[in-house]
Amino acid sequence: MIYLDNAASSWPKPPEVALKMEECLRDYGANPGRGSHSMAMKASRVVFEARRKVAGLFGVRNPDHVIFTQNATEALNMGILGLLKSGDHAITTMLEHNSVRRPLEYVRRERGVELTYVQADSFGRLHAESIRDAIRENTKLIVVTHGSNLTGTLLPIQEIGAIAKEFGIVLMVDVCQTAGVYPIDVEEMNIGMLAFTGHKSLYGPQGTGGLYLHPEVDLEPLMHGGTGGYSELTEMPMTRPDRYEAGTRNTVGIAGLLAGITFVESVGIEKIREHEEVLANLLHQGLSEIKGVTVYGPPLGEQRVPIVSFSVDGFDSHEVGFILDRTYGICVRSGLHCAPVAHETIGTLEQGAVRTSLGYFNTEEDVKALLQAISDLTS
Amino acid sequence: MIYLDNAASSWPKPPEVALKMEECLRDYGANPGRGSHSMAMKASRVVFEARRKVAGLFGVRNPDHVIFTQNATEALNMGILGLLKSGDHAITTMLEHNSVRRPLEYVRRERGVELTYVQADSFGRLHAESIRDAIRENTKLIVVTHGSNLTGTLLPIQEIGAIAKEFGIVLMVDVCQTAGVYPIDVEEMNIGMLAFTGHKSLYGPQGTGGLYLHPEVDLEPLMHGGTGGYSELTEMPMTRPDRYEAGTRNTVGIAGLLAGITFVESVGIEKIREHEEVLANLLHQGLSEIKGVTVYGPPLGEQRVPIVSFSVDGFDSHEVGFILDRTYGICVRSGLHCAPVAHETIGTLEQGAVRTSLGYFNTEEDVKALLQAISDLTS
Repeated sequence: MIYLDNAASSWPKPPEVALKMEECLRDYGANPGRGSHSMAMKASRVVFEARRKVAGLFGVRNPDHVIFTQNATEALNMGILGLLKSGDHAITTMLEHNSVRRPLEYVRRERGVELTYVQADSFGRLHAESIRDAIRENTKLIVVTHGSNLTGTLLPIQEIGAIAKEFGIVLMVDVCQTAGVYPIDVEEMNIGMLAFTGHKSLYGPQGTGGLYLHPEVDLEPLMHGGTGGYSELTEMPMTRPDRYEAGTRNTVGIAGLLAGITFVESVGIEKIREHEEVLANLLHQGLSEIKGVTVYGPPLGEQRVPIVSFSVDGFDSHEVGFILDRTYGICVRSGLHCAPVAHETIGTLEQGAVRTSLGYFNTEEDVKALLQAISDLTS
Repeated sequence: MIYLDNAASSWPKPPEVALKMEECLRDYGANPGRGSHSMAMKASRVVFEARRKVAGLFGVRNPDHVIFTQNATEALNMGILGLLKSGDHAITTMLEHNSVRRPLEYVRRERGVELTYVQADSFGRLHAESIRDAIRENTKLIVVTHGSNLTGTLLPIQEIGAIAKEFGIVLMVDVCQTAGVYPIDVEEMNIGMLAFTGHKSLYGPQGTGGLYLHPEVDLEPLMHGGTGGYSELTEMPMTRPDRYEAGTRNTVGIAGLLAGITFVESVGIEKIREHEEVLANLLHQGLSEIKGVTVYGPPLGEQRVPIVSFSVDGFDSHEVGFILDRTYGICVRSGLHCAPVAHETIGTLEQGAVRTSLGYFNTEEDVKALLQAISDLTS
């Protein structure tokens, strides 16, 4: 199989990921923070080490402000549902995934939170100043993706962060498509909440992700339950990360995530980015040269995350995906990619699009195989 | 190490669990329900197969009513926070874990839900009729544990279910300590919501669990996000399980859970229960015979889940746990076990207790080692 669906979940994983998960299950699969015996302590230490690695990756000073969740969706819900109250206003963009849009629409519907969608142009580009224009007196939160999962657009987070700081508004960033590939620093970018997934470009397993939460931002917890310590309280304790981590963590998954981030560090983010950008450019250029193919997102020469979406004249996107899989053994993702507003932005809400997305383990041969297949299809 | 902390997380796991997880990572680690290519389809099939197994285990007719969560805490929050509204009354017991108590206290505090704690006797026994006595006109939910994680008491779920049915009240059961060991049938027991964990006696990995939700009970989703299908909707679709499964599932964990349940089925619940009950009785009897040891929970001869909690005169529970770990290589859990109300019930809220809990892989030798260590300690 040629796997070009890394924006949905990266594959393959570095071999250390499975090894460390197996070690966890075999050697210390006890409950972290839920006992003082050696196995539980070892589990706690591994979870803490992973917390430290995540903190290091995003420029977070104190690992206690990194909360582990099952996926980025939980982190986004924790931030959006935990912060916004009746009378608040939130700003988001027309590039967002449903994991941002649906919790925002929920608080609009159920709590009367006001909501503004900032438009992007038809290439999926968005200017920081258009965020400024949307700010109101009651704006409490700006939620934006760092990199679109459809168009591959990179958003100007640093500039948006500066605007958020100027107005004292919390900036929440969805880094699902960028963590592990692009530099992210919560201090420099003035990010108040950062939602990440473990199973994409951090090369961890599914079932992992998290939220960085600024020390001065307090959220109503999304879930309530056992925290190991402070058991006598009827409410969740104020201590972090316990306040936001009710119930048993996914220790074995977190051990895998730790191995994934360690891999990313050992290769180096710059080297990973360079490799993926070279392939994305090849793919973009090659697809652009095929008659009957429309490529979406920023024009050639502009930076994009390693995602290239396109459509083929006369073919439904699902049809293209099906043929690529069955005839060529190439895995891509077709349809709406859980991002209908982004499809609205680029004008593909009706027909959907075919998305290819690259990872560190992809090669030039993978790209050539895809280009050949699409050439065959259109000739 | 001698591991007697299976009520926190079972260890070791059957070897197939790690094997199936490794296979998932290696062969089809794509995103289930998020693409039509062969790898994503294989991931979807494995998740469905696990759903079918869980349904089979609990007598659920349609696997779509089984929702996968990261842990039982999420399942309990989903049910309690998703069902109870201002003006409702809920009944629970003085044996519950904080994963039941804290979400209930949250809706009491924030939504004005009324709440009654039904008392158990000092052995941790609770009569179904005392639930009946607590029913009011506005009682919407009864939430009870099937087996106490402190005293080991088994609750009369069948009788409580009959009462719930009589009054048309939803019964939610926490089966964390019983699933995989005791027979559970949601139809026979009239269970409307059943919260389970994957990493205890179902022998799956941490990061897994779920909720069975009766077809006629609708909940406000706890989280909102991508669902693969129905992407154009601003709200979560009504289709199950999608409505309650926003974001990427823990596919690799679920593959492990599937292996765990398959193991339980292959051994047989009866054989597992018999083995664990024999050991629990040995442990109970042996501890009772040691001077200076107080054993909690139902008296010898009464059925209990394979958990035996005790205290040793003159020792703090944490001290006992520490000595057992460092000097004898025995893992137990000391303290409050995230269940302060249960400790209040048996009178150990101040000092805590030492909990031993058995799994299928424990042996008579393990029990003897623990008894010897406690004898040494008290002599």
